Amino acid sequence: MPNSQYRYLQRHFSDLIRDNKLKSGTKLPSEREIGEAFKVTRVTVRQALQNLEAEGLIYRQNRRGWFVTPPAVVYDPASHLSFNRYVAEQGSTPHTEKLAQQVEPANAKIAQLMCITEGTPVLFLHRRRYINLRPILIEKMYINLDLLPGLENEDLSQSLSQLLQQKYQREYRDMDLSFKSTALPSHAANDLGISTGQAGLQVERINYTSDKKVLEIDYEFWRHDAVTINIAIRD
Amino acid sequence: MPNSQYRYLQRHFSDLIRDNKLKSGTKLPSEREIGEAFKVTRVTVRQALQNLEAEGLIYRQNRRGWFVTPPAVVYDPASHLSFNRYVAEQGSTPHTEKLAQQVEPANAKIAQLMCITEGTPVLFLHRRRYINLRPILIEKMYINLDLLPGLENEDLSQSLSQLLQQKYQREYRDMDLSFKSTALPSHAANDLGISTGQAGLQVERINYTSDKKVLEIDYEFWRHDAVTINIAIRD
Repeated sequence: MPNSQYRYLQRHFSDLIRDNKLKSGTKLPSEREIGEAFKVTRVTVRQALQNLEAEGLIYRQNRRGWFVTPPAVVYDPASHLSFNRYVAEQGSTPHTEKLAQQVEPANAKIAQLMCITEGTPVLFLHRRRYINLRPILIEKMYINLDLLPGLENEDLSQSLSQLLQQKYQREYRDMDLSFKSTALPSHAANDLGISTGQAGLQVERINYTSDKKVLEIDYEFWRHDAVTINIAIRD
Repeated sequence: MPNSQYRYLQRHFSDLIRDNKLKSGTKLPSEREIGEAFKVTRVTVRQALQNLEAEGLIYRQNRRGWFVTPPAVVYDPASHLSFNRYVAEQGSTPHTEKLAQQVEPANAKIAQLMCITEGTPVLFLHRRRYINLRPILIEKMYINLDLLPGLENEDLSQSLSQLLQQKYQREYRDMDLSFKSTALPSHAANDLGISTGQAGLQVERINYTSDKKVLEIDYEFWRHDAVTINIAIRD
Protein backbone atom coordinates (compact mmCIF):
# COMPACT_ATOMS: atom_id res chain seq x y z
CA MET A 1 0.00 0.00 0.00
CA PRO A 2 1.54 3.31 -1.10
CA ASN A 3 -0.21 5.11 1.76
CA SER A 4 1.47 3.06 4.48
CA GLN A 5 4.74 3.10 2.50
CA TYR A 6 5.09 6.86 2.47
CA ARG A 7 4.06 7.05 6.12
CA TYR A 8 6.73 4.49 6.97
CA LEU A 9 9.35 6.49 5.09
CA GLN A 10 8.19 9.74 6.68
CA ARG A 11 8.39 8.19 10.15
CA HIS A 12 11.80 6.70 9.40
CA PHE A 13 13.31 10.09 8.53
CA SER A 14 11.50 12.04 11.24
CA ASP A 15 12.85 9.59 13.87
CA LEU A 16 16.39 9.97 12.51
CA ILE A 17 16.10 13.77 12.64
CA ARG A 18 14.49 13.96 16.08
CA ASP A 19 17.10 11.55 17.49
CA ASN A 20 19.76 13.79 15.93
CA LYS A 21 21.14 10.89 13.85
CA LEU A 22 20.59 13.11 10.83
CA LYS A 23 22.01 16.44 11.93
CA SER A 24 20.78 19.88 11.00
CA GLY A 25 22.05 21.00 7.61
CA THR A 26 22.78 17.44 6.41
CA LYS A 27 21.91 16.75 2.78
CA LEU A 28 19.54 13.82 2.32
CA PRO A 29 20.28 11.16 -0.34
CA SER A 30 18.67 11.90 -3.69
CA GLU A 31 15.03 10.93 -4.26
CA ARG A 32 16.22 8.20 -6.63
CA GLU A 33 18.62 6.79 -4.05
CA ILE A 34 15.95 6.78 -1.34
CA GLY A 35 13.52 5.04 -3.71
CA GLU A 36 16.04 2.34 -4.53
CA ALA A 37 17.09 1.80 -0.91
CA PHE A 38 13.47 1.43 0.28
CA LYS A 39 12.15 -0.23 -2.90
CA VAL A 40 9.39 2.34 -3.35
CA THR A 41 8.37 4.58 -6.24
CA ARG A 42 9.52 8.14 -6.76
CA VAL A 43 5.94 9.31 -6.06
CA THR A 44 6.01 7.65 -2.65
CA VAL A 45 9.40 9.19 -1.83
CA ARG A 46 8.17 12.60 -2.92
CA GLN A 47 5.02 12.36 -0.78
CA ALA A 48 7.05 11.43 2.31
CA LEU A 49 9.54 14.25 1.75
CA GLN A 50 6.81 16.82 1.16
CA ASN A 51 5.13 15.84 4.41
CA LEU A 52 8.44 16.16 6.25
CA GLU A 53 8.85 19.58 4.65
CA ALA A 54 5.37 20.63 5.82
CA GLU A 55 6.39 19.55 9.33
CA GLY A 56 9.42 21.82 9.00
CA LEU A 57 11.87 18.94 9.47
CA ILE A 58 13.50 19.15 6.04
CA TYR A 59 13.66 21.77 3.32
CA ARG A 60 14.41 21.78 -0.36
CA GLN A 61 16.83 24.16 -1.97
CA ASN A 62 15.98 24.50 -5.67
CA ARG A 63 18.29 22.32 -7.79
CA ARG A 64 20.38 21.29 -4.76
CA GLY A 65 18.22 18.66 -3.07
CA TRP A 66 16.77 18.12 0.40
CA PHE A 67 18.40 19.15 3.70
CA VAL A 68 17.65 18.74 7.40
CA THR A 69 16.20 22.03 8.70
CA PRO A 70 18.42 23.85 11.19
CA PRO A 71 16.79 25.09 14.43
CA ALA A 72 14.79 28.30 13.95
CA VAL A 73 16.53 31.47 15.01
CA VAL A 74 14.79 33.39 17.80
CA TYR A 75 14.04 37.01 16.97
CA ASP A 76 13.06 39.28 19.85
CA PRO A 77 12.20 42.69 18.41
CA ALA A 78 12.24 44.37 21.82
CA SER A 79 15.91 43.43 22.28
CA HIS A 80 16.88 45.95 19.56
CA LEU A 81 19.67 43.60 18.49
CA SER A 82 20.63 43.68 14.83
CA PHE A 83 20.12 40.57 12.69
CA ASN A 84 23.91 40.07 12.57
CA ARG A 85 24.11 40.23 16.33
CA TYR A 86 21.24 37.93 17.33
CA VAL A 87 22.09 35.30 14.74
CA ALA A 88 25.74 35.28 15.85
CA GLU A 89 24.75 35.13 19.53
CA GLN A 90 22.76 31.98 18.73
CA GLY A 91 25.87 30.33 17.33
CA SER A 92 25.12 30.76 13.63
CA THR A 93 26.67 32.78 10.86
CA PRO A 94 24.67 35.66 9.36
CA HIS A 95 25.23 37.00 5.88
CA THR A 96 23.53 39.77 3.93
CA GLU A 97 23.38 40.21 0.18
CA LYS A 98 22.12 43.37 -1.48
CA LEU A 99 19.86 42.52 -4.40
CA ALA A 100 18.89 46.03 -5.45
CA GLN A 101 18.83 49.62 -4.30
CA GLN A 102 17.43 52.73 -5.81
CA VAL A 103 16.42 56.24 -4.88
CA GLU A 104 12.81 56.62 -5.97
CA PRO A 105 9.84 58.93 -5.42
CA ALA A 106 7.73 57.88 -2.42
CA ASN A 107 4.38 56.45 -3.49
CA ALA A 108 1.18 57.51 -1.73
CA LYS A 109 1.27 54.75 0.89
CA ILE A 110 4.93 55.22 1.87
CA ALA A 111 4.54 59.01 1.85
CA GLN A 112 1.54 58.83 4.15
CA LEU A 113 3.28 56.48 6.61
CA MET A 114 6.42 58.66 6.60
CA CYS A 115 4.45 61.94 6.80
CA ILE A 116 6.31 63.25 3.76
CA THR A 117 5.01 64.64 0.46
CA GLU A 118 4.25 62.06 -2.22
CA GLY A 119 7.17 61.96 -4.66
CA THR A 120 9.84 62.89 -2.09
CA PRO A 121 12.91 60.74 -2.84
CA VAL A 122 13.21 57.68 -0.57
CA LEU A 123 15.75 54.89 -0.65
CA PHE A 124 14.40 51.49 -1.68
CA LEU A 125 16.59 48.62 -0.57
CA HIS A 126 16.08 44.96 -1.41
CA ARG A 127 18.22 42.44 0.45
CA ARG A 128 18.49 38.71 1.00
CA ARG A 129 19.70 37.44 4.35
CA TYR A 130 21.28 34.11 5.12
CA ILE A 131 21.90 31.98 8.17
CA ASN A 132 24.76 29.53 7.68
CA LEU A 133 24.58 30.14 3.90
CA ARG A 134 20.86 29.26 3.77
CA PRO A 135 18.67 32.09 2.39
CA ILE A 136 15.94 32.63 4.98
CA LEU A 137 14.75 36.24 4.74
CA ILE A 138 13.90 38.73 2.02
CA GLU A 139 13.74 42.40 3.02
CA LYS A 140 12.20 45.21 1.03
CA MET A 141 12.79 48.48 2.80
CA TYR A 142 11.88 52.11 2.25
CA ILE A 143 14.22 54.48 4.06
CA ASN A 144 13.59 58.14 4.87
CA LEU A 145 16.46 60.02 3.18
CA ASP A 146 15.39 63.32 4.76
CA LEU A 147 16.60 61.84 8.04
CA LEU A 148 19.56 59.95 6.59
CA PRO A 149 20.97 62.09 3.77
CA GLY A 150 23.64 60.39 1.67
CA LEU A 151 22.81 56.88 2.91
CA GLU A 152 22.48 55.71 -0.69
CA ASN A 153 26.24 56.17 -1.13
CA GLU A 154 27.17 53.75 1.66
CA ASP A 155 27.75 50.00 1.45
CA LEU A 156 24.22 48.77 2.05
CA SER A 157 25.00 45.09 2.45
CA GLN A 158 26.44 45.84 5.88
CA SER A 159 24.46 46.23 9.10
CA LEU A 160 22.17 49.25 8.80
CA SER A 161 21.93 49.61 12.58
CA GLN A 162 25.68 50.03 12.76
CA LEU A 163 25.71 52.45 9.85
CA LEU A 164 22.95 54.53 11.43
CA GLN A 165 24.77 54.66 14.71
CA GLN A 166 28.21 55.45 13.33
CA LYS A 167 27.38 57.87 10.55
CA TYR A 168 24.14 59.46 11.74
CA GLN A 169 24.15 58.94 15.52
CA ARG A 170 20.70 57.39 15.14
CA GLU A 171 19.31 54.21 16.63
CA TYR A 172 16.36 51.96 15.93
CA ARG A 173 14.09 52.32 18.97
CA ASP A 174 10.31 52.29 18.89
CA MET A 175 8.64 50.19 16.23
CA ASP A 176 5.24 49.01 15.10
CA LEU A 177 5.20 45.37 14.09
CA SER A 178 2.67 43.32 12.21
CA PHE A 179 2.97 39.55 11.71
CA LYS A 180 1.04 37.35 9.39
CA SER A 181 1.49 33.72 8.48
CA THR A 182 0.98 33.58 4.73
CA ALA A 183 1.72 31.81 1.50
CA LEU A 184 4.87 33.47 0.17
CA PRO A 185 4.22 35.68 -2.84
CA SER A 186 6.13 34.58 -5.94
CA HIS A 187 8.72 37.39 -5.81
CA ALA A 188 9.77 36.39 -2.27
CA ALA A 189 9.63 32.65 -2.97
CA ASN A 190 11.83 33.13 -6.06
CA ASP A 191 14.33 35.19 -4.10
CA LEU A 192 14.47 32.44 -1.45
CA GLY A 193 14.78 29.66 -4.04
CA ILE A 194 11.61 27.87 -2.90
CA SER A 195 8.25 27.23 -4.54
CA THR A 196 5.58 29.90 -4.67
CA GLY A 197 2.76 29.28 -2.24
CA GLN A 198 4.94 27.73 0.46
CA ALA A 199 4.21 29.00 3.94
CA GLY A 200 6.13 31.96 5.25
CA LEU A 201 6.01 34.62 7.90
CA GLN A 202 5.37 38.12 6.66
CA VAL A 203 6.50 40.94 8.91
CA GLU A 204 5.78 44.63 8.42
CA ARG A 205 7.79 46.96 10.58
CA ILE A 206 7.80 50.71 10.97
CA ASN A 207 10.92 52.01 12.71
CA TYR A 208 10.72 55.35 14.50
CA THR A 209 13.42 57.76 15.61
CA SER A 210 13.53 58.82 19.24
CA ASP A 211 11.62 61.96 18.21
CA LYS A 212 8.81 59.82 16.66
CA LYS A 213 9.68 60.30 13.01
CA VAL A 214 9.45 57.35 10.63
CA LEU A 215 12.97 56.27 9.79
CA GLU A 216 12.22 53.17 7.78
CA ILE A 217 9.42 50.89 6.62
CA ASP A 218 10.32 47.22 6.19
CA TYR A 219 8.50 44.38 4.51
CA GLU A 220 10.06 41.06 5.49
CA PHE A 221 9.35 37.61 4.11
CA TRP A 222 10.78 34.75 6.18
CA ARG A 223 10.92 31.04 5.42
CA HIS A 224 8.31 29.63 7.79
CA ASP A 225 10.76 27.21 9.39
CA ALA A 226 13.55 29.73 9.94
CA VAL A 227 12.31 31.95 12.73
CA THR A 228 10.43 32.05 16.02
CA ILE A 229 9.37 35.45 17.29
CA ASN A 230 9.53 35.97 21.05
CA ILE A 231 7.97 38.95 22.72
CA ALA A 232 7.50 39.80 26.37
CA ILE A 233 4.50 42.01 27.13
CA ARG A 234 5.09 43.98 30.32
CA ASP A 235 2.89 46.74 31.62
CA MET B 1 -3.03 24.85 -22.41
CA PRO B 2 -4.04 23.76 -18.89
CA ASN B 3 -1.37 26.03 -17.39
CA SER B 4 -2.80 29.22 -18.88
CA GLN B 5 -6.35 27.94 -18.20
CA TYR B 6 -5.91 27.63 -14.47
CA ARG B 7 -4.08 30.95 -14.33
CA TYR B 8 -6.95 32.58 -16.21
CA LEU B 9 -9.46 31.09 -13.75
CA GLN B 10 -7.33 32.08 -10.78
CA ARG B 11 -7.07 35.66 -12.04
CA HIS B 12 -10.80 35.78 -12.76
CA PHE B 13 -11.72 34.92 -9.17
CA SER B 14 -8.98 36.99 -7.55
CA ASP B 15 -10.18 40.06 -9.48
CA LEU B 16 -13.79 39.43 -8.38
CA ILE B 17 -12.68 39.13 -4.76
CA ARG B 18 -10.35 42.12 -4.75
CA ASP B 19 -13.02 44.27 -6.43
CA ASN B 20 -15.44 43.08 -3.75
CA LYS B 21 -17.81 41.62 -6.34
CA LEU B 22 -17.50 38.35 -4.48
CA LYS B 23 -17.93 39.39 -0.87
CA SER B 24 -16.23 37.89 2.16
CA GLY B 25 -17.97 34.72 3.37
CA THR B 26 -19.67 34.07 0.01
CA LYS B 27 -19.80 30.43 -1.04
CA LEU B 28 -18.26 29.78 -4.46
CA PRO B 29 -20.11 27.61 -7.00
CA SER B 30 -19.16 23.92 -6.83
CA GLU B 31 -16.03 22.73 -8.64
CA ARG B 32 -18.26 20.93 -11.12
CA GLU B 33 -20.28 24.07 -11.84
CA ILE B 34 -17.11 26.16 -12.32
CA GLY B 35 -15.67 23.53 -14.67
CA GLU B 36 -18.85 23.51 -16.76
CA ALA B 37 -19.15 27.29 -16.87
CA PHE B 38 -15.53 27.77 -17.99
CA LYS B 39 -15.33 24.56 -20.06
CA VAL B 40 -12.26 23.29 -18.20
CA THR B 41 -11.46 20.04 -16.40
CA ARG B 42 -11.92 19.43 -12.71
CA VAL B 43 -8.11 19.25 -12.33
CA THR B 44 -7.76 22.75 -13.75
CA VAL B 45 -10.49 24.10 -11.46
CA ARG B 46 -8.87 22.46 -8.46
CA GLN B 47 -5.44 23.90 -9.31
CA ALA B 48 -6.85 27.43 -9.59
CA LEU B 49 -8.77 27.11 -6.31
CA GLN B 50 -5.76 25.73 -4.45
CA ASN B 51 -3.64 28.64 -5.62
CA LEU B 52 -6.33 31.09 -4.47
CA GLU B 53 -6.35 29.27 -1.13
CA ALA B 54 -2.56 29.59 -0.83
CA GLU B 55 -2.96 33.32 -1.47
CA GLY B 56 -5.45 33.41 1.41
CA LEU B 57 -8.29 34.65 -0.82
CA ILE B 58 -10.58 31.63 -0.43
CA TYR B 59 -10.77 28.77 2.02
CA ARG B 60 -12.32 25.33 2.01
CA GLN B 61 -14.48 24.03 4.78
CA ASN B 62 -14.42 20.22 4.73
CA ARG B 63 -17.51 18.84 3.01
CA ARG B 64 -19.08 22.32 2.63
CA GLY B 65 -17.18 23.78 -0.31
CA TRP B 66 -15.16 26.93 -0.99
CA PHE B 67 -15.74 30.36 0.55
CA VAL B 68 -14.29 33.84 0.16
CA THR B 69 -11.93 34.50 3.10
CA PRO B 70 -13.11 37.20 5.49
CA PRO B 71 -10.58 39.90 6.49
CA ALA B 72 -8.10 38.71 9.14
CA VAL B 73 -8.87 39.80 12.68
CA VAL B 74 -6.19 41.97 14.28
CA TYR B 75 -4.89 40.65 17.59
CA ASP B 76 -2.86 43.05 19.72
CA PRO B 77 -1.66 41.13 22.79
CA ALA B 78 -0.58 44.30 24.59
CA SER B 79 -4.16 45.58 24.52
CA HIS B 80 -5.17 42.91 27.07
CA LEU B 81 -8.54 42.66 25.34
CA SER B 82 -10.26 39.29 25.46
CA PHE B 83 -10.91 37.39 22.22
CA ASN B 84 -14.63 38.11 22.58
CA ARG B 85 -13.96 41.79 22.96
CA TYR B 86 -11.48 42.40 20.13
CA VAL B 87 -13.42 40.30 17.64
CA ALA B 88 -16.66 42.16 18.50
CA GLU B 89 -14.91 45.54 18.31
CA GLN B 90 -13.86 44.67 14.75
CA GLY B 91 -17.46 44.09 13.77
CA SER B 92 -17.52 40.31 13.84
CA THR B 93 -19.18 37.72 16.02
CA PRO B 94 -17.01 35.58 18.31
CA HIS B 95 -18.04 32.18 19.54
CA THR B 96 -16.28 29.66 21.77
CA GLU B 97 -16.90 25.93 21.98
CA LYS B 98 -15.41 23.76 24.69
CA LEU B 99 -14.08 20.51 23.20
CA ALA B 100 -12.65 18.97 26.36
CA GLN B 101 -11.60 19.72 29.89
CA GLN B 102 -9.93 17.65 32.53
CA VAL B 103 -8.03 18.01 35.77
CA GLU B 104 -4.76 16.17 35.27
CA PRO B 105 -1.34 15.87 36.89
CA ALA B 106 1.13 18.46 35.54
CA ASN B 107 3.78 16.86 33.34
CA ALA B 108 7.45 17.80 33.74
CA LYS B 109 7.36 20.66 31.21
CA ILE B 110 4.20 22.32 32.53
CA ALA B 111 5.34 21.85 36.14
CA GLN B 112 8.67 23.48 35.41
CA LEU B 113 7.09 26.46 33.64
CA MET B 114 4.54 26.89 36.45
CA CYS B 115 7.14 26.36 39.20
CA ILE B 116 4.97 23.65 40.76
CA THR B 117 5.76 20.04 41.65
CA GLU B 118 5.34 17.53 38.83
CA GLY B 119 2.02 15.76 39.29
CA THR B 120 0.24 18.72 40.90
CA PRO B 121 -3.30 18.84 39.46
CA VAL B 122 -3.71 21.40 36.67
CA LEU B 123 -6.74 22.13 34.52
CA PHE B 124 -6.39 21.18 30.86
CA LEU B 125 -8.84 22.98 28.61
CA HIS B 126 -9.30 22.42 24.89
CA ARG B 127 -11.45 24.91 23.00
CA ARG B 128 -12.37 25.86 19.47
CA ARG B 129 -13.03 29.51 18.68
CA TYR B 130 -15.05 30.90 15.82
CA ILE B 131 -15.40 34.20 14.04
CA ASN B 132 -18.75 34.55 12.25
CA LEU B 133 -19.28 30.78 12.64
CA ARG B 134 -15.97 29.96 10.97
CA PRO B 135 -13.61 27.90 13.14
CA ILE B 136 -10.30 29.79 13.18
CA LEU B 137 -8.48 28.97 16.40
CA ILE B 138 -7.75 25.91 18.53
CA GLU B 139 -6.62 26.49 22.10
CA LYS B 140 -4.99 23.97 24.40
CA MET B 141 -4.50 25.50 27.80
CA TYR B 142 -2.98 24.43 31.08
CA ILE B 143 -4.31 26.44 34.01
CA ASN B 144 -2.77 26.75 37.47
CA LEU B 145 -5.49 25.51 39.85
CA ASP B 146 -3.45 26.51 42.91
CA LEU B 147 -4.16 30.11 41.90
CA LEU B 148 -7.71 29.48 40.64
CA PRO B 149 -9.23 26.83 42.90
CA GLY B 150 -12.58 25.47 41.74
CA LEU B 151 -12.26 26.87 38.22
CA GLU B 152 -12.99 23.39 36.82
CA ASN B 153 -16.58 23.69 38.10
CA GLU B 154 -17.34 26.84 36.09
CA ASP B 155 -18.73 27.12 32.55
CA LEU B 156 -15.49 27.08 30.60
CA SER B 157 -16.91 28.00 27.21
CA GLN B 158 -17.35 31.56 28.42
CA SER B 159 -14.67 34.25 28.51
CA LEU B 160 -11.93 33.20 30.93
CA SER B 161 -10.77 36.80 31.41
CA GLN B 162 -14.23 37.71 32.66
CA LEU B 163 -14.41 34.65 34.90
CA LEU B 164 -10.99 35.40 36.38
CA GLN B 165 -11.97 38.98 37.08
CA GLN B 166 -15.39 38.26 38.55
CA LYS B 167 -14.70 35.14 40.57
CA TYR B 168 -11.02 35.48 41.46
CA GLN B 169 -10.30 39.20 41.12
CA ARG B 170 -7.42 38.27 38.84
CA GLU B 171 -6.43 39.73 35.51
CA TYR B 172 -4.22 38.67 32.63
CA ARG B 173 -1.33 41.14 32.63
CA ASP B 174 2.26 40.29 31.74
CA MET B 175 2.82 37.57 29.19
CA ASP B 176 5.56 35.88 27.22
CA LEU B 177 4.60 35.22 23.64
CA SER B 178 6.18 33.07 20.99
CA PHE B 179 4.98 33.01 17.35
CA LYS B 180 5.85 30.55 14.65
CA SER B 181 4.48 30.11 11.18
CA THR B 182 4.08 26.37 10.76
CA ALA B 183 2.28 23.55 9.03
CA LEU B 184 -0.67 22.75 11.28
CA PRO B 185 -0.26 19.47 13.16
CA SER B 186 -2.97 16.97 12.36
CA HIS B 187 -4.85 17.35 15.69
CA ALA B 188 -5.27 21.10 15.11
CA ALA B 189 -6.06 20.75 11.41
CA ASN B 190 -8.74 18.16 12.21
CA ASP B 191 -10.26 20.39 14.87
CA LEU B 192 -10.39 23.25 12.36
CA GLY B 193 -11.84 21.07 9.60
CA ILE B 194 -8.94 21.69 7.21
CA SER B 195 -6.23 19.46 5.74
CA THR B 196 -3.16 18.51 7.75
CA GLY B 197 -0.08 20.36 6.62
CA GLN B 198 -1.86 23.59 5.75
CA ALA B 199 -0.12 26.70 6.97
CA GLY B 200 -1.04 28.08 10.34
CA LEU B 201 0.20 30.39 13.04
CA GLN B 202 1.28 28.72 16.25
CA VAL B 203 1.29 30.89 19.36
CA GLU B 204 2.62 29.90 22.75
CA ARG B 205 1.69 32.21 25.58
CA ILE B 206 2.55 32.21 29.25
CA ASN B 207 0.24 34.43 31.30
CA TYR B 208 1.53 35.80 34.59
CA THR B 209 -0.29 37.19 37.60
CA SER B 210 0.63 40.66 38.84
CA ASP B 211 2.91 38.95 41.39
CA LYS B 212 4.76 37.07 38.59
CA LYS B 213 3.23 33.66 39.10
CA VAL B 214 2.30 31.58 36.06
CA LEU B 215 -1.46 31.60 35.75
CA GLU B 216 -1.86 29.79 32.47
CA ILE B 217 0.07 28.29 29.56
CA ASP B 218 -1.65 28.42 26.19
CA TYR B 219 -0.89 26.69 22.94
CA GLU B 220 -2.85 28.27 20.10
CA PHE B 221 -3.21 27.12 16.51
CA TRP B 222 -4.67 29.70 14.16
CA ARG B 223 -5.75 29.36 10.54
CA HIS B 224 -3.03 31.26 8.69
CA ASP B 225 -5.51 33.55 6.95
CA ALA B 226 -7.53 34.42 10.07
CA VAL B 227 -5.26 36.66 12.10
CA THR B 228 -2.72 39.46 11.92
CA ILE B 229 -0.71 40.16 15.06
CA ASN B 230 0.09 43.80 15.77
CA ILE B 231 2.58 44.82 18.42
CA ALA B 232 4.01 48.20 19.30
CA ILE B 233 7.49 48.10 20.82
CA ARG B 234 8.04 51.15 23.04
CA ASP B 235 11.00 51.70 25.32
